[in-house]
Amino acid sequence: MPEENINIIYVGKKPTMNYVLALVTQFNNNVDHITIKARGKAISKAVDIAEITKRKFIKEVKYDKINLETEVIHSDRGDSNVSSIEIIMKR
Amino acid sequence: MPEENINIIYVGKKPTMNYVLALVTQFNNNVDHITIKARGKAISKAVDIAEITKRKFIKEVKYDKINLETEVIHSDRGDSNVSSIEIIMKR
Repeated sequence: MPEENINIIYVGKKPTMNYVLALVTQFNNNVDHITIKARGKAISKAVDIAEITKRKFIKEVKYDKINLETEVIHSDRGDSNVSSIEIIMKR
Repeated sequence: MPEENINIIYVGKKPTMNYVLALVTQFNNNVDHITIKARGKAISKAVDIAEITKRKFIKEVKYDKINLETEVIHSDRGDSNVSSIEIIMKR
């Protein structure tokens, strides 16, 4: 499902501006909806990425929907919960 | 305007469960809308607080609106931008 996945950006440990660049590039390639996903401490970074893209680069972008959820992580030491955010941006 | 302010919880450096307890207490005192506000790195904690309250304590709570913004902080060393989140919860 490459057509679906291309519009999701997963936020990890790279610098904030790497993700901003990825978003800006996709919007400039006529993608009209992009979802930013992050969990745990990366949630703050996801909000930075969304706000920088919107304020500094593509001003006509809007927030379409913002979802908060809890994901269960299974590991050897048992299950743990981690919060996640999904920011859907629309041009 | 104490009637308006009582429904806003500002997330800072206290432990997550302190804020969860504040939220649960307010909902149990028949407050029906509560706004959680946080900026910078505290944004991740705000999402944890909202999710824990909703999943573990007051299951009928819903997200009414989630706003992302950028605030300008003025200091001696110039202005800087910080992202902020506002999570409006409704019982």
